[in-house]
Amino acid sequence: MSKKVAVILSGCGVYDGAEIQESVITLLRLDQRGAQVQCFAPNVAQMHVINHLSGEEMPESRNVLTESARIARGNVEDVRTLAVEHFDALILPGGFGVAKNLSNFAVEGANCSVQPDVLAAAQAFAQAGKPIGLICISPALAVKIFGAGVTATLGSSEDPAAAALVSMGGVHEECAVEDVIEDQAHKLVTTPAYMLAQSIAEAASGINKLVDRVLELAQPH
Amino acid sequence: MSKKVAVILSGCGVYDGAEIQESVITLLRLDQRGAQVQCFAPNVAQMHVINHLSGEEMPESRNVLTESARIARGNVEDVRTLAVEHFDALILPGGFGVAKNLSNFAVEGANCSVQPDVLAAAQAFAQAGKPIGLICISPALAVKIFGAGVTATLGSSEDPAAAALVSMGGVHEECAVEDVIEDQAHKLVTTPAYMLAQSIAEAASGINKLVDRVLELAQPH
Repeated sequence: MSKKVAVILSGCGVYDGAEIQESVITLLRLDQRGAQVQCFAPNVAQMHVINHLSGEEMPESRNVLTESARIARGNVEDVRTLAVEHFDALILPGGFGVAKNLSNFAVEGANCSVQPDVLAAAQAFAQAGKPIGLICISPALAVKIFGAGVTATLGSSEDPAAAALVSMGGVHEECAVEDVIEDQAHKLVTTPAYMLAQSIAEAASGINKLVDRVLELAQPH
Repeated sequence: MSKKVAVILSGCGVYDGAEIQESVITLLRLDQRGAQVQCFAPNVAQMHVINHLSGEEMPESRNVLTESARIARGNVEDVRTLAVEHFDALILPGGFGVAKNLSNFAVEGANCSVQPDVLAAAQAFAQAGKPIGLICISPALAVKIFGAGVTATLGSSEDPAAAALVSMGGVHEECAVEDVIEDQAHKLVTTPAYMLAQSIAEAASGINKLVDRVLELAQPH
C-alpha cells in the first residue's frame, strides 16, 4: 500500500519562494519510492517578488499558491484544505519562501510567526505522530510546530538561522550536506540542502536521505 | 577532464516557460555525472504569462532570461553570449516555453521560426559536430537546427507535433517514455519526457538516459 505524502510549497524560486531544485528533487524521490504525493501552498500574496538575475525587488505582486503551481504542473491545493487524516507524512522543501511566505522568519527571526494555515497543518501532523521532513531553512519553523526542545539542523551552528532556532528553544545539531538529523521523539527529519550545498547533486544527496527516512517512519493508513 | 554542457532554458513553468521538473532533472543528472553546466536563456519577453493553477492568461509581462534564473538560482546567461567553443554539448529541456519563447511553434506549427540567438547557438553546436539533446517538445525545432532528414521523437506519431515535424521534413520515430531516439549522423538525442510521462519518475527515466548518452557522445576539449 503506497504511502501518501503532503508537500507544502512556498512559491517558485529560491529568493522569494520555494527552492525549485529542492522541491523537484523531493517530488522525484517520493515518486521513485512509490509514494503518492499532493502539493499544497497557502493562498496568500508573496512577501515580495525578487528578480532572480539581479537580486533586486520587482514592482510586482505574485500569489504563493499560483506560483507554486508552476513547480507542481498545476496540481497544487490550498493548504487550508490539507486534511491530515488523508496523509502519512509531511515534507517542506526550503527556499526563502519558507521564511517570507510560510512565516515571517526572514524579517522577525526568533520572534517569527508561522502563516496560520501552514502552522495548523504542520501541527496536525505532529500531534498525530506522523513524520515531518524539513529541508534547508524550513527547520527554522520547528519550534513553532513542535515546541521547545525539538532537535533540528540548519547546517552549520555558525549560521544566524541556527542561533535563532536555539533562541526560540530548539536544539541545533550540525549536519553535513549529505546527511540528516533525526529527532526520534518528534519524528522530525531535517537536512541542510542549500544551507550548505555547493551543487545540485550535493543538495540531492541529503534530500534523498530525508525522503527515504520520512517514508520509513510513515505508517500507511 | 569534465565535460562542459550548455543548457538553454525558456522561462520557468510548463505552460509559458521551461518545464521545471524536466529542467531540474537535467541539471541534477548532469551534475551527478560530473559535467560542468552553464544555463542560458534568451533575453526576450515571454509570449504570455499563464496562471498555472487556472490555465488562464494573466495580464502580466515576464522576461524569459529573468524567469529562467529562478530554476538556475541566478546562474543563467544571455544565450547571445553562448560561445560554442567553450562547450562540448547542448541540451534543451521542454515546456511550452520552447514553442512560445524559443520559437513560435505553438502558433505557427510547421511554419515556425526559431528565436535567432537560440537558432544561431544550436546550429553552431550542430556544425561543430557536438552532440545535442532535445527533450519533450524541443525536438520540434530539430529540422530548423539540422535541416530536413533529421530523425527525432516527440513520443507518439499521433501527436500533432510529430506530424508538424514530418511536414517540416523531419523523420519521426515513436519512442517509449523511458527511452531515447538517437540520430547518429547528427549526434542528436531526443526523448519524450512529459510528451508522454504520467509521473515525474517516468519523465526522469528518459531524461537520465538522454543526459548519459549526450555525455558519452561529447568530447571534452
